[in-house]
Amino acid sequence: MRQGFLERLREAIADRGRDLLAGRRTLDLRSPAHLCAELLGEGHGEASGVALAREIVRAYHGMDAPERLAFFEMIERDFGPDPGVIRAASARYLETHSVEDYLALSRAIEPRRQELFRRLNMAPRGTRALVGMRADLLGFLRSHPDLRTVDADLHHLLASWFNRGFLQLRRIDWNSPVALLEKLIVNDSVHEVRGFQDLRRRLARDRRCFALFHPVMPDEPLFFVEVALVCGTPRSVGGLLDPAAPLLDPETAETAVFFSNCSLQPGLAGISFGSFLVKQVIEELRMEFPGLGRFTTLSPLPRLALLLRSALRGETGGLEPDLLEALLAEYSDPLGPAPGQALLDLLERDPVQNCEALTRPLLALGMAYLLGRGPRGLLDPEAAFHASNGACLEGLHAFADLSGRGLAGSLGLMASYLYVPEQLEQNHETFVETGELPVSRSLSRLRREVQSAAKTVRRRQRRNRTREMPAG
Amino acid sequence: MRQGFLERLREAIADRGRDLLAGRRTLDLRSPAHLCAELLGEGHGEASGVALAREIVRAYHGMDAPERLAFFEMIERDFGPDPGVIRAASARYLETHSVEDYLALSRAIEPRRQELFRRLNMAPRGTRALVGMRADLLGFLRSHPDLRTVDADLHHLLASWFNRGFLQLRRIDWNSPVALLEKLIVNDSVHEVRGFQDLRRRLARDRRCFALFHPVMPDEPLFFVEVALVCGTPRSVGGLLDPAAPLLDPETAETAVFFSNCSLQPGLAGISFGSFLVKQVIEELRMEFPGLGRFTTLSPLPRLALLLRSALRGETGGLEPDLLEALLAEYSDPLGPAPGQALLDLLERDPVQNCEALTRPLLALGMAYLLGRGPRGLLDPEAAFHASNGACLEGLHAFADLSGRGLAGSLGLMASYLYVPEQLEQNHETFVETGELPVSRSLSRLRREVQSAAKTVRRRQRRNRTREMPAG
Amino acid sequence: MRQGFLERLREAIADRGRDLLAGRRTLDLRSPAHLCAELLGEGHGEASGVALAREIVRAYHGMDAPERLAFFEMIERDFGPDPGVIRAASARYLETHSVEDYLALSRAIEPRRQELFRRLNMAPRGTRALVGMRADLLGFLRSHPDLRTVDADLHHLLASWFNRGFLQLRRIDWNSPVALLEKLIVNDSVHEVRGFQDLRRRLARDRRCFALFHPVMPDEPLFFVEVALVCGTPRSVGGLLDPAAPLLDPETAETAVFFSNCSLQPGLAGISFGSFLVKQVIEELRMEFPGLGRFTTLSPLPRLALLLRSALRGETGGLEPDLLEALLAEYSDPLGPAPGQALLDLLERDPVQNCEALTRPLLALGMAYLLGRGPRGLLDPEAAFHASNGACLEGLHAFADLSGRGLAGSLGLMASYLYVPEQLEQNHETFVETGELPVSRSLSRLRREVQSAAKTVRRRQRRNRTREMPAG
Amino acid sequence: MRQGFLERLREAIADRGRDLLAGRRTLDLRSPAHLCAELLGEGHGEASGVALAREIVRAYHGMDAPERLAFFEMIERDFGPDPGVIRAASARYLETHSVEDYLALSRAIEPRRQELFRRLNMAPRGTRALVGMRADLLGFLRSHPDLRTVDADLHHLLASWFNRGFLQLRRIDWNSPVALLEKLIVNDSVHEVRGFQDLRRRLARDRRCFALFHPVMPDEPLFFVEVALVCGTPRSVGGLLDPAAPLLDPETAETAVFFSNCSLQPGLAGISFGSFLVKQVIEELRMEFPGLGRFTTLSPLPRLALLLRSALRGETGGLEPDLLEALLAEYSDPLGPAPGQALLDLLERDPVQNCEALTRPLLALGMAYLLGRGPRGLLDPEAAFHASNGACLEGLHAFADLSGRGLAGSLGLMASYLYVPEQLEQNHETFVETGELPVSRSLSRLRREVQSAAKTVRRRQRRNRTREMPAG
Repeated sequence: MRQGFLERLREAIADRGRDLLAGRRTLDLRSPAHLCAELLGEGHGEASGVALAREIVRAYHGMDAPERLAFFEMIERDFGPDPGVIRAASARYLETHSVEDYLALSRAIEPRRQELFRRLNMAPRGTRALVGMRADLLGFLRSHPDLRTVDADLHHLLASWFNRGFLQLRRIDWNSPVALLEKLIVNDSVHEVRGFQDLRRRLARDRRCFALFHPVMPDEPLFFVEVALVCGTPRSVGGLLDPAAPLLDPETAETAVFFSNCSLQPGLAGISFGSFLVKQVIEELRMEFPGLGRFTTLSPLPRLALLLRSALRGETGGLEPDLLEALLAEYSDPLGPAPGQALLDLLERDPVQNCEALTRPLLALGMAYLLGRGPRGLLDPEAAFHASNGACLEGLHAFADLSGRGLAGSLGLMASYLYVPEQLEQNHETFVETGELPVSRSLSRLRREVQSAAKTVRRRQRRNRTREMPAG
Repeated sequence: MRQGFLERLREAIADRGRDLLAGRRTLDLRSPAHLCAELLGEGHGEASGVALAREIVRAYHGMDAPERLAFFEMIERDFGPDPGVIRAASARYLETHSVEDYLALSRAIEPRRQELFRRLNMAPRGTRALVGMRADLLGFLRSHPDLRTVDADLHHLLASWFNRGFLQLRRIDWNSPVALLEKLIVNDSVHEVRGFQDLRRRLARDRRCFALFHPVMPDEPLFFVEVALVCGTPRSVGGLLDPAAPLLDPETAETAVFFSNCSLQPGLAGISFGSFLVKQVIEELRMEFPGLGRFTTLSPLPRLALLLRSALRGETGGLEPDLLEALLAEYSDPLGPAPGQALLDLLERDPVQNCEALTRPLLALGMAYLLGRGPRGLLDPEAAFHASNGACLEGLHAFADLSGRGLAGSLGLMASYLYVPEQLEQNHETFVETGELPVSRSLSRLRREVQSAAKTVRRRQRRNRTREMPAG
Repeated sequence: MRQGFLERLREAIADRGRDLLAGRRTLDLRSPAHLCAELLGEGHGEASGVALAREIVRAYHGMDAPERLAFFEMIERDFGPDPGVIRAASARYLETHSVEDYLALSRAIEPRRQELFRRLNMAPRGTRALVGMRADLLGFLRSHPDLRTVDADLHHLLASWFNRGFLQLRRIDWNSPVALLEKLIVNDSVHEVRGFQDLRRRLARDRRCFALFHPVMPDEPLFFVEVALVCGTPRSVGGLLDPAAPLLDPETAETAVFFSNCSLQPGLAGISFGSFLVKQVIEELRMEFPGLGRFTTLSPLPRLALLLRSALRGETGGLEPDLLEALLAEYSDPLGPAPGQALLDLLERDPVQNCEALTRPLLALGMAYLLGRGPRGLLDPEAAFHASNGACLEGLHAFADLSGRGLAGSLGLMASYLYVPEQLEQNHETFVETGELPVSRSLSRLRREVQSAAKTVRRRQRRNRTREMPAG
Repeated sequence: MRQGFLERLREAIADRGRDLLAGRRTLDLRSPAHLCAELLGEGHGEASGVALAREIVRAYHGMDAPERLAFFEMIERDFGPDPGVIRAASARYLETHSVEDYLALSRAIEPRRQELFRRLNMAPRGTRALVGMRADLLGFLRSHPDLRTVDADLHHLLASWFNRGFLQLRRIDWNSPVALLEKLIVNDSVHEVRGFQDLRRRLARDRRCFALFHPVMPDEPLFFVEVALVCGTPRSVGGLLDPAAPLLDPETAETAVFFSNCSLQPGLAGISFGSFLVKQVIEELRMEFPGLGRFTTLSPLPRLALLLRSALRGETGGLEPDLLEALLAEYSDPLGPAPGQALLDLLERDPVQNCEALTRPLLALGMAYLLGRGPRGLLDPEAAFHASNGACLEGLHAFADLSGRGLAGSLGLMASYLYVPEQLEQNHETFVETGELPVSRSLSRLRREVQSAAKTVRRRQRRNRTREMPAG
């Protein structure tokens, strides 16, 4: 209620300020650059500051993509640090090493746009607007790498404001506002929600959904996770999502299965909440249900199909084509001469019919993908997320997600990552050191097979290269 | 409620983490320096991070003043930026001016303690703890100026977190929690509150009290103001504070008098909220009572007695002794040969009895003090605050606060600053440019007298200096 | 939150009490009659009272329909007043007329089951359970008129507890809990809601939905109304319900159209809230949108099709077959020799195609029905509701609701009832006196036609009866 | 917030209604009798009903005591049942015994003022007003016994509305609104609260305070209890109330001592909440602190001094003068020839000095008083309350409350009543059957002494009476 009151008050102040602005002959309300300069200028009372901030936010919201790009380029050009000042401060500091000159250099380094963003935050719903701006900005970065400095400033600010110490965990259930639930429906990137009836089952008494919020954006979840409380260990997600799945008394549940997690604010990319949330939720569940003994996941392998296809086209950088070939060679009999393409074809034609023939090659393929590493670490983002949280891979299930999305992205495979609260710390440290996905004993045989195939392939590659050498 | 839930959850996580910590042979729980290093180190899962943060906060709360000083010195010494890295980065940037090298220099400049503080914020009630730390630190600065760098980092962080866009305005009334009202009683630095009966009158239907809060510290007001809704313009504060003062129907009020404002968080010194609050409150009052036509204050002159005494001892830097002498000379008849001291004596002996004789010299003295400027601007902090908000001095009242505190600090004088919403902006800009306190027409004669006395004094001083020159 | 806390506490107390109950050798937990007697008996501590109440409620919830009937029969038989005591008390009062004997007679009259119901209310969610019990009981009344005394007691109690002074009006919008919105979807008896997308349009910024609640059943709406804010006067409901209808800025709306209202608690039948709600909503809308000048409705004629069919079968008691015949005779040309059945057939076949031919007969028919009165007042419940609120019929629209439900029940007709706040009182009083539906001037010609047809019919009937007399 | 919204809405409706009322020529706004008749009359729309109710409540609040008495007499006279109708209905029922005639008699019995009170409840803050009216009415009953019928109706209504199923238990602590705490301060009839500092200790972490509320009066506590969590069993209340008493970690507490309980709504006299509250609080404490093993009280003996004085004046009906004499005779040596008066004198002069001499006679006196029974049960209201809850007397402490109030009312004595959750039911039943205060073994010797003294006295009295007989 108060929130709403303050919003109204801010609007009233902004309105009053707008009248002031309108009375100033020198102000060009149609030029964002001019407004930004004014907002940063000295000599602004509170009211016109809030009004200026709102005008800029409004102007931004009215822009199309090219105008927004131009806006960021203006910010980059006009509100960066002053190279001359930095040069002078650097030079002085290199000379004196004094505290004063260090502080002066600090000040010189900080671009004016940081203060600009801080002042924009005063606009009604300003924080939300800045998060949205960064989402746009990230989209421009690839084609306009110069904007990285603007992004660095926005990231710095948002990382400070979205410090975990400020975030609030809230349970989402059937009594949550429909406007909030709608956001989950629209945003669940893991499993499609086909309307409220789907959602209802996901919020029943043997399910839990939690989301993280920032206190100034109480209706904008940052990240959510969905958990199923079950007996035994599910090997496929269909049963968990089925609106008609039988209800379990949660007091009798043995296992908590995290089956969906999703980041909802693209503008906060690079500021991690998921790990914090998963661990808070585990604590919360342990408090509510002392009988829960296992915490695990059913997770997609989101880039598997994509990387398989590029490997089949001979592209490197993801799954190694040679390793792929070697792995699939073992299953060439049932799959024929081009086993990779055959596998894709069979899956597309009738996954269930070809279940028996495809299970082993799919598991081998999945394991190779999960273990695979690129220049930035593990190839699979889910594996990277859970390993970094201290979990270990404990299950790999073929034909575990037969939805369109599950087949298209993960070839129907799902992975289980086990969270043993007492081992998270140690696992996390090992992962940071080695970069290798920890794998539990139950999967060690499959891993060994894949690793030995990889070794063979690498030996052969080395031999080939040695042979080619003399020719070179 | 949720807040409490999250607090409990954080504690549970911290407890769980503490068990982990206890199991680590290498961790020295009694060494804050070691714990800080660990908290910043890689390889910490969420749980032990929260637990480490809590341990450090707890250790800090258990320290006495010398230990806290040593703690900050350790932070200054061990977690500052690396001068070698800054040097290298500066040198490289001076050479290339490239974006990469600018970003690298930015990173090099940021001291590691900023990240340390950010991680401490994860502790249960971490924000509160950091605000408290800075309050302590400010106390050490005068004797330990090297800690200024630590303060710069804490200030930078807190200024970012306490951005006005995040603050919430709440009305305080007789239905507010007693724990909150108690804080107002203890902290009202302007007018002593002698218990709840005093407070009750201040929260009656013709009074308003508002406070600013940060969402993660919902029971810690940052700043509050108290307003009386009256008819006519009160010339003394006694009637407003009297528990037996008759109640007014606020719908019939013509004037809102801000008679107290107070900052409650010494740890947030240098981060200004007051201006924001005063203007929000004016808007709020205009919305609630469209009939209100005047917004003014009854404000103390808090350093007047102090500066008068130093001037009488001949010290410069505050009120100029010569100007003081010249002003009081006009009233030497009634006050005798040492009018300054006589004034103080008479005030102390019986203010009311000597009212007639003292009024004019007090007003002249007060005006000289309010107009007085030192190296950092106006001598009077209240005048500086209101002038910077865009208000102008419109009244000066002798014998307006006869409480012990009012006589001891302000010699019983009070000033009224007028807020004309439409003129705040313009006044503020003029004040920023000229540094002079704006004074309304009703006081122009008094100002002229004081200024002409000052001119005379300065002319004489110049003459004297010219005479002394040849001798020099 | 507190609510939840108290629920848990009541459950804990009930659990604790259940242990006590279980320890009592003499208690037959499987016999509701026995439990009820125990609950009414002296000698029960609080805990076992709450536990007994809960056991009875649980037992009831586990019963099927015949068992519930038997339960009420037991209540009727075993917990009624004692006729002997009433007799004695009556006799004594007839003799003495003393205050004591009046009070004694009062006590004798009150059946013990009233106290039984009051004690059942202590069960967790007891009020809800009693409301549910009465819903069941009402279903049994027709076949078991003896239960009327039980119903009189339950009605008496619930009417006291659901006194309007206790009810709370809440706005329902897109931020309301989905569990609540779901109840509206399921229960809107006027216009079918086909899922959340339909509902979303009904909760957009130019719509308003309000519901009444009792404080101990905060998630069980008792009654709701839906309002559309529009310009002009809509003559059909399709445009209001269309999910794709364009949004209006509500500040510019001229007319509020109540297009749905619904009672959600069958167990509270006979306790009227609707009038209270409609008038509170009008006040609320006038406060929020001072520009609103007209308050009207688009209401179904829910029993029209039903009564037309019975009239066609020659049944009296509803629409008079003779009047119907006379009215339709005027339109016999286009509709053929059996105009009533023809009208129904044409409507069923293709309402839009036959629009021109059907409009006049439909309007005449609708007016006759709306004016029609049976032994309990107006035939149409909506007309009775609005007339009793003080509204008057101001519009009758053919082909205004072409949904399946609208055609099947109201033959596509809709009525508009106008609420003029200043005239409600006077209209209400007139209606109470005369029992006639007030009709505005715009419809007076249609009314006159129908009334003159009715007069002709009645004259003819009298003549016929006179003729038959001599033979009789 | 909503509450406030609805209050405003009701006021708006009432205002609007008032305009309607003002426009009615026939309405005499100055005659409550006329307004009441109007409110009950047919033909009132909602708005004018609410307005009428508010006018009556306002008129009532403006009345002085004689006018209020006249108001109730008018209600008694004008809005009672119609004796003629009752007579007719009684007679008919005596004849037929039919269901219809029973229901008709029921309706005839119910006075019209019940409906009047139900309609008054629609006024803004109507429930509160009715509770206040009954408080006034109770004050008139002694001198105006005819008003008992009006009281019976108000009691009937309020008992129904304040059914325990509707009440809410809330914890009161230092974060509760000061307006609420103030009510506790003013109303604690057991131990004087000398301002907020006293209260602060009573709300510290080893104390608990709970209150019962009705949802429509969320800021009006109905009943509260205060509990101290301690180790060991305190024998005096001074230590519990001392603002400087050391804090205990409540997790280590063994015993919960109920040391104050108080009903705050005189208008709800005769509707018992205390038993419900005490037991709910015991459950709540057991949930929060599983380590608590004992639940006991420190209770005053509020009528002891009063009854001692009347006994010394020879009045019977309370403590029997003969028994008193017999008891005190045993201690005549130290107390002299008139031991009763001597005891009072010594207590008044210096309780602590005379502690040794007074302890035994005080204990004997206290026990006799606690066991004493009058026509309505136990003489001591606290003993009656706790025995009826199922507790038993387990301690009697002399010089346990040396406050002015404690000495004046209870002669410094305090009693402890033990609550053993498992025995409450059985104890309660025994008490209902026998009417005797249950006393634990530790006090059995004292009880035996007092009972044997009583027996001796009664034997002597019988003998005396026998002797007087022949003379008679």
